[in-house]
Amino acid sequence: MEPVFIGGAFREAQDPVGSFRAVNPATGESIGPDYPISGAADLDACLEAALLAAPALRDTDPAQIAAFLHSYAAGIDAEAASLAPLASAETGLAAEGRYLANELPRTTRQLRLAAEAALSHSWTLPVIDTQAGLRSCLAPLARPVFVLGPNNFPFAFNAISGGDFAAALAARNPVIAKGHPSHPQTTQALARLAAAALVSSGLPAAAVQLIHDLPRQLGLRLAGDRRLGAVAFTGSRPAGLALKAAADAAGVPAYVELSSCNPVALLPGALEERGDAIAAELLASCTLGAGQFCTSPGLVLLVDGPATRRFVEAAARHYAAAAPGLLLNQGVLSSLEESLRALTAAGARALVQGQRLAGAGFRHGPTLLSSSGASFLAAAPALQREAFGPATLLIIAKDADELCLVTAALEGNLTGTLYSTSDDEQLYRRVAPLLRDRVGRLIEDRMPTGVAVSPAMNHGGPSPATGHPGFTSVGLPASIRRFAALHSYDHVKDAHLPLVLRNQNPGRIWRSIDGRHTQEDLP
Amino acid sequence: MEPVFIGGAFREAQDPVGSFRAVNPATGESIGPDYPISGAADLDACLEAALLAAPALRDTDPAQIAAFLHSYAAGIDAEAASLAPLASAETGLAAEGRYLANELPRTTRQLRLAAEAALSHSWTLPVIDTQAGLRSCLAPLARPVFVLGPNNFPFAFNAISGGDFAAALAARNPVIAKGHPSHPQTTQALARLAAAALVSSGLPAAAVQLIHDLPRQLGLRLAGDRRLGAVAFTGSRPAGLALKAAADAAGVPAYVELSSCNPVALLPGALEERGDAIAAELLASCTLGAGQFCTSPGLVLLVDGPATRRFVEAAARHYAAAAPGLLLNQGVLSSLEESLRALTAAGARALVQGQRLAGAGFRHGPTLLSSSGASFLAAAPALQREAFGPATLLIIAKDADELCLVTAALEGNLTGTLYSTSDDEQLYRRVAPLLRDRVGRLIEDRMPTGVAVSPAMNHGGPSPATGHPGFTSVGLPASIRRFAALHSYDHVKDAHLPLVLRNQNPGRIWRSIDGRHTQEDLP
Repeated sequence: MEPVFIGGAFREAQDPVGSFRAVNPATGESIGPDYPISGAADLDACLEAALLAAPALRDTDPAQIAAFLHSYAAGIDAEAASLAPLASAETGLAAEGRYLANELPRTTRQLRLAAEAALSHSWTLPVIDTQAGLRSCLAPLARPVFVLGPNNFPFAFNAISGGDFAAALAARNPVIAKGHPSHPQTTQALARLAAAALVSSGLPAAAVQLIHDLPRQLGLRLAGDRRLGAVAFTGSRPAGLALKAAADAAGVPAYVELSSCNPVALLPGALEERGDAIAAELLASCTLGAGQFCTSPGLVLLVDGPATRRFVEAAARHYAAAAPGLLLNQGVLSSLEESLRALTAAGARALVQGQRLAGAGFRHGPTLLSSSGASFLAAAPALQREAFGPATLLIIAKDADELCLVTAALEGNLTGTLYSTSDDEQLYRRVAPLLRDRVGRLIEDRMPTGVAVSPAMNHGGPSPATGHPGFTSVGLPASIRRFAALHSYDHVKDAHLPLVLRNQNPGRIWRSIDGRHTQEDLP
Repeated sequence: MEPVFIGGAFREAQDPVGSFRAVNPATGESIGPDYPISGAADLDACLEAALLAAPALRDTDPAQIAAFLHSYAAGIDAEAASLAPLASAETGLAAEGRYLANELPRTTRQLRLAAEAALSHSWTLPVIDTQAGLRSCLAPLARPVFVLGPNNFPFAFNAISGGDFAAALAARNPVIAKGHPSHPQTTQALARLAAAALVSSGLPAAAVQLIHDLPRQLGLRLAGDRRLGAVAFTGSRPAGLALKAAADAAGVPAYVELSSCNPVALLPGALEERGDAIAAELLASCTLGAGQFCTSPGLVLLVDGPATRRFVEAAARHYAAAAPGLLLNQGVLSSLEESLRALTAAGARALVQGQRLAGAGFRHGPTLLSSSGASFLAAAPALQREAFGPATLLIIAKDADELCLVTAALEGNLTGTLYSTSDDEQLYRRVAPLLRDRVGRLIEDRMPTGVAVSPAMNHGGPSPATGHPGFTSVGLPASIRRFAALHSYDHVKDAHLPLVLRNQNPGRIWRSIDGRHTQEDLP
């Protein structure tokens, strides 16, 4: 049985309640060694060790945090050639095109940006009010953060290497990572690299810990432990809401990134101008990673008319001609089929009915569904069920008014996209504000699947896409602020202040002093 | 029966489930007219009107929001001479010393600072990443905010004039205010002034609405309505946690400011130097507003020794000699007595046992309790029960180590205070980090009851003092950010961007552009 990583040591699970292995989605066969499903003893050991590490980590020089993140990123880069095929075998995504060319560089860049943010203190928002004798900044929670990663990004969102991990650690909080059981070998390989970086950077041994899986009830128990600093989760709506409920009841902030249909409104002028190209873009976006992106375009909003009809025909041709997608695991395949049945039962009509491919692992053909605006309005919640995988539902409104009603009936989403030309300006001005309030990121004239690691990114959005509309899980320094406490200092002597708030500012940290942003010292 | 204020009109409650009157705490007699306890119809009407007003308010020019806030503040200033005695009759707090000299100017200053923040967009944290083509800012929730005010600050924290009100409105969200039934006449007088300011500023009529009271279940129903933008509550822990649970379950952010013992650590050197003066400061702080401040010093941490013994004697003399405090209402008096009984049952010893004054309204003598460090550690949760009113519990640790253990056993609080001299430096360095992580605001060498309206204030803190350690309910612009959604714009045309993110920046808004804070335009 593979070990867990607790208190700085790879050691046997103390009281495992079961075990599991990875499954190669291309064949359906189990691969690699056994991994433990941890019991209460492992969880308790993790929590105790993290609680002890928390104050030390809070007081750690940010340079040391940065050294860890840089060293870890370098380790991942150095091992990229072995990590990529490992992840590919566990996820069915291409070692070269997906991992080496994209997700791995993105992951290490994210770790390095987190290192920069830790060093620059850019996440701390220091404020000085010289008149009132008050100073404030964001500071470490000084408590463990429980991070649960999703199935779909084994590097960039992994609980032990992804955005939540980097952000929690940049704020100098210990991370208790729960890997996703869909890619344990990848996660374990990352843990080995993280362990080496912990040693070389001299961070507390329990700054990063890993368990591979655990029973649902134990996860809820940890999330609901009052000693925890925060919970960060990316994954399915039911699992995330259960964790959030447990954390909420304990007064623990929970950041959950759940589900999203990512509506794309294609206005008539844009379709008139380049409907065929947009149909190709839609297919490419919908089938990227076999449709298993949080921001995959699941819902397309249209207004009936000649250009729209041509677009629908073109899209149907594209979807019908596209190869089946290889899905992450049996669960994703079953859930996709279930969602497609539910959407059909709610009134959606199949234009292209993708099928499960028998005997070839977890493959499913791209699926294009369609509904009238009126049908959507009559069954708006049911038709906004996320179909995670290569599937898109077109909503064809009869006119501009109905398009507005459809947009207003949308639930909270991560992204909302508008394709338009200057001919569409009037309609844009009606639809955009409705869409804007229902999404975290508004996109123009490009598909939503790209999620840049940028300080101006919002990978978040209104409920039920996430648990709070004010936070992003991607993009630094904003994502770090989720794992921080606001600290105010009232007439505290300069020598007793944290470095970011002292009169002297040798690090040239950006601070708001009496309403002015500056990198200067205070006299 | 007095009217509610819904949809821009003062009108009769539609389906009241009861009524109430104010009570003069100095006599225990009912005063003023009857006020309705609203039923479901009023709540529904409020919510419907606020939902309709929300998009219009979102698109309102901030100058108009500022005009409302300024006009309202001017109205309050102009009526101060009549408002102060009204509030005094309902709360027992002095018209002159408390209201005219302090709380009213603070309230109108807060409204004016909110106006400034609305105009300067300082709460929106605009970020521009020119390389990635991404821009982000905080934006209105575009949904109603349900604000519930406490009993103890009828102006500065009133649901229709206080900090939460000003912050929610500065972020251009409609407010559904629930007044506190302890001061309905004051609240109604404020509503009249708000109504006049709404008309003169031309804001949507339902931007501000008021109900005076409602059954608990209806409050929870509104807090748990998915269409709500946020809930803001200041008051008792059970009521706040119930509202938060309802909001949490619906994915509605809840900001609750609950209870706090505000530990004050008096280190030996400071007591040696000026123990008598500190004893007087403690009494003054503890009896300010009859101890009914959120930040009243309820817990004093000491290390046994000669200076501490002299301090305890001096404090006991001060508390014994002080006049009884006039409490806000029967509920506060009963609750104080209950808390004092519970603290005594948990092992606290009365040094000065204040008593309820028979036949003179709701009066109670200042109370000074004491406990050893060991007793505290043995019953830490029970001895951290908030005794809202003029009461303080001294914890006398046997040595520095025990003081650290006591500090580490503290729950989350709004404030933590340290009195020290240079002789205490070593002990300060041990205690301060422990205290720091358990409070929102760390204070040196002054009592915690002052809560300045400053951009560097934190009137917040870790659970159970509040529901989230990252937010403050006092201080602008930070408090406004609670009522905002993060909006990212991905390759959105300049003309489609909100003003704060456009290339031209005529308002000289502070923005972070490619990591640099600037008020400049973008080319």
